[in-house]
Amino acid sequence: MGQYTPPLRDMQFVLYEMLDLENALRKLPPHADIDRETIDSVLEEGGKFCAEVLYPLNQVGDREGCKYQGDGVVTTPPGFKEAYARFVEAGWGALGMDPEFGGQGLPHVVHSAFMEMMNSANQAWSMYPGLSHGAYNALRAFGSPEQKSLYLPKLVSGQWTGTMCLTEAQAGTDLGIIKTRAEPRGDGTYAITGTKIFISAGEHDLAENIIHLVLARLPDAPAGTKGISLFIVPKFLPDASGNPGQRNAVKCGSIEHKMGIHGNATCVMNFDGAVGTLVGQPNQGLKAMFVMMNSARLGVGMQSLGLAEVAYQNSLAYAKERLQSRSLTGPKLKDKPADPIIVHPDVRRMLLTQKAYVEAARAFTYWAGLAIDREMKHPDERVRKDNADLVALLTPVIKGFITDNGYECTTLAMQVLGGHGYIWESGLEQHVRDARINMIYEGTNTIQALDLLGRKVLGDMGAKLMKFGKAMQDALKPLTENPAMQEFLAPFNALQSEVQKLTVEIGSKAMKNPDEVGAAAVPYLRIIGHLVFSFAWCFAAGVALRRLAEPATANDPFYQAKLQTARFYFAKLYPETAGLMQQARAGAEPLMALDATQF
Amino acid sequence: MGQYTPPLRDMQFVLYEMLDLENALRKLPPHADIDRETIDSVLEEGGKFCAEVLYPLNQVGDREGCKYQGDGVVTTPPGFKEAYARFVEAGWGALGMDPEFGGQGLPHVVHSAFMEMMNSANQAWSMYPGLSHGAYNALRAFGSPEQKSLYLPKLVSGQWTGTMCLTEAQAGTDLGIIKTRAEPRGDGTYAITGTKIFISAGEHDLAENIIHLVLARLPDAPAGTKGISLFIVPKFLPDASGNPGQRNAVKCGSIEHKMGIHGNATCVMNFDGAVGTLVGQPNQGLKAMFVMMNSARLGVGMQSLGLAEVAYQNSLAYAKERLQSRSLTGPKLKDKPADPIIVHPDVRRMLLTQKAYVEAARAFTYWAGLAIDREMKHPDERVRKDNADLVALLTPVIKGFITDNGYECTTLAMQVLGGHGYIWESGLEQHVRDARINMIYEGTNTIQALDLLGRKVLGDMGAKLMKFGKAMQDALKPLTENPAMQEFLAPFNALQSEVQKLTVEIGSKAMKNPDEVGAAAVPYLRIIGHLVFSFAWCFAAGVALRRLAEPATANDPFYQAKLQTARFYFAKLYPETAGLMQQARAGAEPLMALDATQF
Repeated sequence: MGQYTPPLRDMQFVLYEMLDLENALRKLPPHADIDRETIDSVLEEGGKFCAEVLYPLNQVGDREGCKYQGDGVVTTPPGFKEAYARFVEAGWGALGMDPEFGGQGLPHVVHSAFMEMMNSANQAWSMYPGLSHGAYNALRAFGSPEQKSLYLPKLVSGQWTGTMCLTEAQAGTDLGIIKTRAEPRGDGTYAITGTKIFISAGEHDLAENIIHLVLARLPDAPAGTKGISLFIVPKFLPDASGNPGQRNAVKCGSIEHKMGIHGNATCVMNFDGAVGTLVGQPNQGLKAMFVMMNSARLGVGMQSLGLAEVAYQNSLAYAKERLQSRSLTGPKLKDKPADPIIVHPDVRRMLLTQKAYVEAARAFTYWAGLAIDREMKHPDERVRKDNADLVALLTPVIKGFITDNGYECTTLAMQVLGGHGYIWESGLEQHVRDARINMIYEGTNTIQALDLLGRKVLGDMGAKLMKFGKAMQDALKPLTENPAMQEFLAPFNALQSEVQKLTVEIGSKAMKNPDEVGAAAVPYLRIIGHLVFSFAWCFAAGVALRRLAEPATANDPFYQAKLQTARFYFAKLYPETAGLMQQARAGAEPLMALDATQF
Repeated sequence: MGQYTPPLRDMQFVLYEMLDLENALRKLPPHADIDRETIDSVLEEGGKFCAEVLYPLNQVGDREGCKYQGDGVVTTPPGFKEAYARFVEAGWGALGMDPEFGGQGLPHVVHSAFMEMMNSANQAWSMYPGLSHGAYNALRAFGSPEQKSLYLPKLVSGQWTGTMCLTEAQAGTDLGIIKTRAEPRGDGTYAITGTKIFISAGEHDLAENIIHLVLARLPDAPAGTKGISLFIVPKFLPDASGNPGQRNAVKCGSIEHKMGIHGNATCVMNFDGAVGTLVGQPNQGLKAMFVMMNSARLGVGMQSLGLAEVAYQNSLAYAKERLQSRSLTGPKLKDKPADPIIVHPDVRRMLLTQKAYVEAARAFTYWAGLAIDREMKHPDERVRKDNADLVALLTPVIKGFITDNGYECTTLAMQVLGGHGYIWESGLEQHVRDARINMIYEGTNTIQALDLLGRKVLGDMGAKLMKFGKAMQDALKPLTENPAMQEFLAPFNALQSEVQKLTVEIGSKAMKNPDEVGAAAVPYLRIIGHLVFSFAWCFAAGVALRRLAEPATANDPFYQAKLQTARFYFAKLYPETAGLMQQARAGAEPLMALDATQF
């Protein structure tokens, strides 16, 4: 019923006009020869695959869902398996992966753009390859040469898929209290025993093997997070030639009934002495887990960007077509019984909120994708380190801010359709239900906020934050000469200096009372999110002003729209920061005063 | 799986300690003899019915949903019919209705409290009697004596149920373009022909007859909203003795598949020359419709209050039980593997947000219930008029602000449970899905905002708003002497004077450009919502301070909690108004600058 068109023009605006991608890649040796034509054709073909193969399966995936067939067998919704076969055949899973393991070696930033489109088309389906990607990252960083050569090519091709088995019934956020145990079998392998829950893609019928990355405790492990180790537990143990051999003692016990993402199997996984091999060093599992987790957190941000984009497209189409009531300033379509609802200011507020959040999120996430490329592939160690710092700082912001906004955006998209948005057939309410999980999994948004404020900002006395502040100022410097930019730079600069003050205030309160960090963290993350989006809209406005000053593009409505959307952002969304500042400063006392029994 | 305990103590706090209900009722002749014991026992028994009969059907109603059996037949989920029979038998539907028609004649404010509990227990089920209530209000106000005596006793007893048939496929918000027509049959009745959609409780198996109130156009009707008339169209035409007789030509064509409220049938209703009788005057249907609609809008506010309360109870229970991570200030339960998550500041923020919004919404809606009682039954005409004005002014705020907050609260409640909240079995995600419709139906929240700012505030040059401002100041006057109240009164007074300034500003801009109303309306409604909630928390804090100064209640944790929740409200929720003021003042230009093609 709905529609999805890959937003190629907007994607190209970010890649080439904001990130100056071709020049940026020239400085990264493995990508120095990649030109715009190659990237554009990847995005165009990838977009076709998403729009034509994945998107038509999105509603059926929601309606039919995955099914537990008993005895550990899970089937995916009609069409999922065929789409996955086409995905593997076309090599889409290998896009951003290392050529050493059969990947196509395209930059991460290009893969990010492809992920946006996959998630617009079908988040539930896209989680299957998404989890393989997380497993790939962890094994690539910490696996032994044997593990890498055995597993990575199959994960890269998509022949096998991966999972992250962290959560247990009593241990979600708090991985220090997991109970799953790993006992040496005397042959270098381990027997893994325990039950994991909420395992996305834990069992399915898409691939011939599933590679579980499992957190478990060795017999002599110290208590808490320092006693966690990471193991590879394949569904089928690879035989001598690396093909799926003996069935391992890991089995799906049931799947969850969820609010959304019905097309992805959320599994209870029972490990009953399953054979596993250790990844990296004993008791160092959390480090490997964080590699997976950070990759997953950026991926979750992309999921919400994707959902917000497709919801926006559908609410916009409705707002242009639906005739209902007259404009407050007088009839616009006099020959029709009513005007299209896009004439109404508040319908525009709902549309522009989506547009402004989506476009800034795209700039933010693609920028992060490029920063990861620089972190991994820049020849200059200092540049690698700087980019690693920025990615570390902003990963929780991408996860927390973009997923909160994604929920708001999909909720607004539904609202534009009125009662029709509440009906399954519209597809809009599914986007809300799917978007809802993104605020929860891979670390709730509260956890993201604590990670940002506690670990990433206060943890190094603001060093990474200052580095980011300087990076933004450097990027904006060429734009400051244009007096027309003042309108955008003034609020950005004001927010940046308020953030500095606020950070110092919280830091000094936190030294007396650690609860001050917990009390301020969530509004603080939203403020940082707005700082990033203010920067993105300054930069986009700067590009637009430059284009509008060039004869060839002087009247291009595309750039006019960018300029006006920047104005909308600063007029209607940025003001949220005024209240957030007060909330962040109000401290812990109003939260902690009540005894638990008084609630 | 979940739990619901009627919050009698909190309800009594509002009724007796904030509204001084016994004294208030003494001034209303029909209720002058009602004492607290009567009211308390009604709430206690009513609460039992809701918690023991309706609540256990809430999840099964969501899972099973209503079913369209073909040929116009709709069945409700298992247990709904039996619960409805018990409801009718016990006379719960007659609670607040007029004794002249078989009602129990209790004050509306008591009925409001009962409605809160019904909606906490089962919103989808409660919509069936809720719609009867709306039909009752319209017929009581505009029906002929014959219509009243034929229909009202059956609606009051619940033997028959009612509907509101307004929406058509092409006409939702814009009722002026409905196409359903009514042609005189020559015997004083009309033949009604057309198709209505989104008709809640349009068909079901709970009652022996369904009374549809239908908007339609007479042959000579003027165009637009001035040509709409209201008709009674019963499913079965009453026979000579007033019992269901001949089947009328109105039939359910299908039911919608929705995001939530699965237990309530949302019907396409086909009228094929169905026999109807005119209610009130020809072409005056909109007036009658507004009576139904205003009753429904207050009812929708109660729905979100009810959902937010039950979601809060369940997230609070989880937060006290779930052990996960240690307090930032050091372990609290040293003999356990982790602390209950209620030790974490941000979990408390999520709980207190719910608590502060729920308790203020309760005070606000019960106050409105009492204002309706005064409007209907006070002997002094001036008092009746004043209360009518306040109810008219605040109805869109109750609908818009409380349903937006209800969605936020149920979303936060889910978040407290983390991944477990996303699973059907928790019951939390159902509350979110159910709460979502409340922002849409009976006039979207944008429509509420336009009604508030355009019609209710600017429409009489702020007269009703000033009346409300004075009423709040009068109510707070006895509390101003206590210096401890300054902490609460200062922000309330600051907001009230900001609202006055803002209203004048918008009014003067709107005279030049009507889009300024549409642009400011939504943030304006939220600001007024906070003005009301600031007032409610000032008043509650004042009561609490007085109790805490009395020896008998000096250490009562109930009043300490009220005081701390008021502090939380002003520290963490009230600051939202700072951003809202900027958004409301940013005007229409940032919304209207883009051409529709540039989105």
